Amino acid sequence: MRIIGLDVSLRCTGIGVIGRSAGRLAALEFSLVRNKASLPHSACLLALQRDLAAALARTQPESAAVEGGFFFKNAKTAMILGEARGVVIATCAAAGVPIFEYAPRLVKQSLTGFGGAEKAQVARMVMTILGLRETPPEDAADALALAICHAQHQTGIAALQPQPI
Amino acid sequence: MRIIGLDVSLRCTGIGVIGRSAGRLAALEFSLVRNKASLPHSACLLALQRDLAAALARTQPESAAVEGGFFFKNAKTAMILGEARGVVIATCAAAGVPIFEYAPRLVKQSLTGFGGAEKAQVARMVMTILGLRETPPEDAADALALAICHAQHQTGIAALQPQPI
Repeated sequence: MRIIGLDVSLRCTGIGVIGRSAGRLAALEFSLVRNKASLPHSACLLALQRDLAAALARTQPESAAVEGGFFFKNAKTAMILGEARGVVIATCAAAGVPIFEYAPRLVKQSLTGFGGAEKAQVARMVMTILGLRETPPEDAADALALAICHAQHQTGIAALQPQPI
Repeated sequence: MRIIGLDVSLRCTGIGVIGRSAGRLAALEFSLVRNKASLPHSACLLALQRDLAAALARTQPESAAVEGGFFFKNAKTAMILGEARGVVIATCAAAGVPIFEYAPRLVKQSLTGFGGAEKAQVARMVMTILGLRETPPEDAADALALAICHAQHQTGIAALQPQPI
């Protein structure tokens, strides 16, 4: 079982891949796709596509988890995030990796038992669950949290499982 | 000189490629990437990526033109359009084709002389300018209009030219 979690944004996307080792969850790798603020959107999106395609080829996950259920005040911000999401969704689809969405509150609830948990609390639970000794960068911790949340929702009961997007 | 115009959406993207023949603009090809409403986003975005990559490989345009300057009321709609835009931008970037944005009013203004022109009026001007005998499907006509608008903005004076996104 391998899951890639993706905390998607145009300027800094977190990537975190987890697997199961001796019955417990473990981090296989985590990284960031960073794009300088000076780069045009086209260069950012191309870097995201290439880095993600490389991570998928390297780690061969069976499924991907991304954030969903957004509430935006600003449509411009929504469109820019949409651009990065579109690249991520198409790149996973091209690699044959189904993608599942989880709302931020559900991720926090799954990891800490409390939907309104602080980011630092979620990061500590990511470290505990995966047995990490050092704190991952914030966006990579969020990506790992998404992957853990998806692992927890794979119940084995098909009717209860989330549907890919 | 070859330009690909792209009227982008998740369910139906218009593609129109123009070139110059004996001093005047001509349509090289136009088509639609249609996705059924029943398909998940991932399948729609993958089809868009593949069909666009094929069109770019086949027609070898030097630049691409897409719609820009949106005003959205609904952030959800903006994010879905963003997903399709992201795929289009990354696919053009992967093919080394720079992308330029034009606001709908500017496209209408460029083709008809009036920024508030009706869609049918724009389609008629597309047919006249390109010497087409039959009306292209609406989204393909919009794509060809974007390509014509970009051709008209290539002034030869670098400082006046639009910047790629």
